[in-house]
Amino acid sequence: MRILRFRNRGRAKYGVLEDNQILGLSGDPFVQLDRSGRISFDGKRYALDQVKVLAPCKPSKIIALGLNYRSHAEETGLEIPKAPLIFMKPSTAVIGPDDVIVLPRLPQYRVDYEGELGVVIGKSARHVPAERAVDFILGYTCVNDVSERYAQRDDGQWTRAKSFDTFAPIGPWIETAIERPGELKLETYLNGQLRQSSNTNDLIFGIPHLVSFISGVMTLLPGDVIATGTPAGIGKMVPGDTVEVRIRGIGILRNTVKGSG
Amino acid sequence: MRILRFRNRGRAKYGVLEDNQILGLSGDPFVQLDRSGRISFDGKRYALDQVKVLAPCKPSKIIALGLNYRSHAEETGLEIPKAPLIFMKPSTAVIGPDDVIVLPRLPQYRVDYEGELGVVIGKSARHVPAERAVDFILGYTCVNDVSERYAQRDDGQWTRAKSFDTFAPIGPWIETAIERPGELKLETYLNGQLRQSSNTNDLIFGIPHLVSFISGVMTLLPGDVIATGTPAGIGKMVPGDTVEVRIRGIGILRNTVKGSG
Repeated sequence: MRILRFRNRGRAKYGVLEDNQILGLSGDPFVQLDRSGRISFDGKRYALDQVKVLAPCKPSKIIALGLNYRSHAEETGLEIPKAPLIFMKPSTAVIGPDDVIVLPRLPQYRVDYEGELGVVIGKSARHVPAERAVDFILGYTCVNDVSERYAQRDDGQWTRAKSFDTFAPIGPWIETAIERPGELKLETYLNGQLRQSSNTNDLIFGIPHLVSFISGVMTLLPGDVIATGTPAGIGKMVPGDTVEVRIRGIGILRNTVKGSG
Repeated sequence: MRILRFRNRGRAKYGVLEDNQILGLSGDPFVQLDRSGRISFDGKRYALDQVKVLAPCKPSKIIALGLNYRSHAEETGLEIPKAPLIFMKPSTAVIGPDDVIVLPRLPQYRVDYEGELGVVIGKSARHVPAERAVDFILGYTCVNDVSERYAQRDDGQWTRAKSFDTFAPIGPWIETAIERPGELKLETYLNGQLRQSSNTNDLIFGIPHLVSFISGVMTLLPGDVIATGTPAGIGKMVPGDTVEVRIRGIGILRNTVKGSG
């Protein structure tokens, strides 16, 4: 099942995608699924190409992983961490498919794409053992962990570099029917050219371990997103660029880039 | 004016404190103030000592400052930053006055208190110039930026160390009538003994600059909290401890500490 969020008559609404039709949902599937395990349809239908698709969830927080692909750790020259290395991106950074990544108002910047698999939490999760992690996951989506490198270098802490408004594109929808999330082909294209090509089987810390580790620190809430880390091939974006994160079995998250001016 | 949140018949509700009486508010003062600049009372009264006081706001994010007092930068041996050094604490870490700080389930840990002045945002703020910062601030409160030092050292990134559930005590209320937030006496007591004693006039980056700098990165939402950094005197807490952050003109944020078992 593909769950998405879209704008209908000026209001955000959830739906389920079937072929190119959206079946409307009554209410918030995160609340409904957390309470009863069921979602309810409202009987309405919409054509996918007639609506504005939004980010598929409203995370209270995005927990992102640093250096979780060996290939990316190598390209940064940083040591592979002994435990999952987490940082956060705020809800205010979230944008949806086809939304615009706005470069920051800074005298100099270098803003990179980082294509990632996003794990969307379905149920409130606290101290979840790895073997039960799957019960707390609603599904999977694409994330672009947009990052400004000068702030990242100067601060040491990554928060500022990762938190500018528009720096967390998420979408296009949540695919709930992924049997092997640890075996997904992940690619990032810049202006149609392949720049990142990997597979989630290269993750250093796998998804069950991440859910267990993070939920051992903080409660994960329905709609929260774990951005599982990026493989090698990161690179700079400039105004006018189009960036796509493609994950086989999920879909394509496409965004364009513009300056702040 | 002192705005607080409290539990009444199982529900959270806002109020204004006058002497030891709470005047009930109808609805959410953050929404009301952001829309109309006014709050509305519901005509009900409660005795302060008869209700459970909660954290005075529900921040979508807490932006915290690293090394923003010279005295604390010196005790850590770290360099004084050239620009505000920000990190985030998640909403799931928030607890209120008299709530319990729960030490993490880790084989070894060292959990410290860090008393801080909290700036509570009243209006959605984006690219706010320092000279207009005050227009976006609802008021001030006490924050304890609870921190686990082994995770902080091992990760390099501070997110995990600062994000455990219960690691963000906030309260006891929001004082809106502070004329000089840059001249407030700030103290932290552990089991009645003075451990941190400073004044916000020792802040390296002052409050207007912080609001401007942070809102230049990310949109600050009503209820978001800026934890402005801690002075010298940080130290360890163990089960059974009582910690108090006291800010003159605001009040006392008191919490107890227990183990996870």
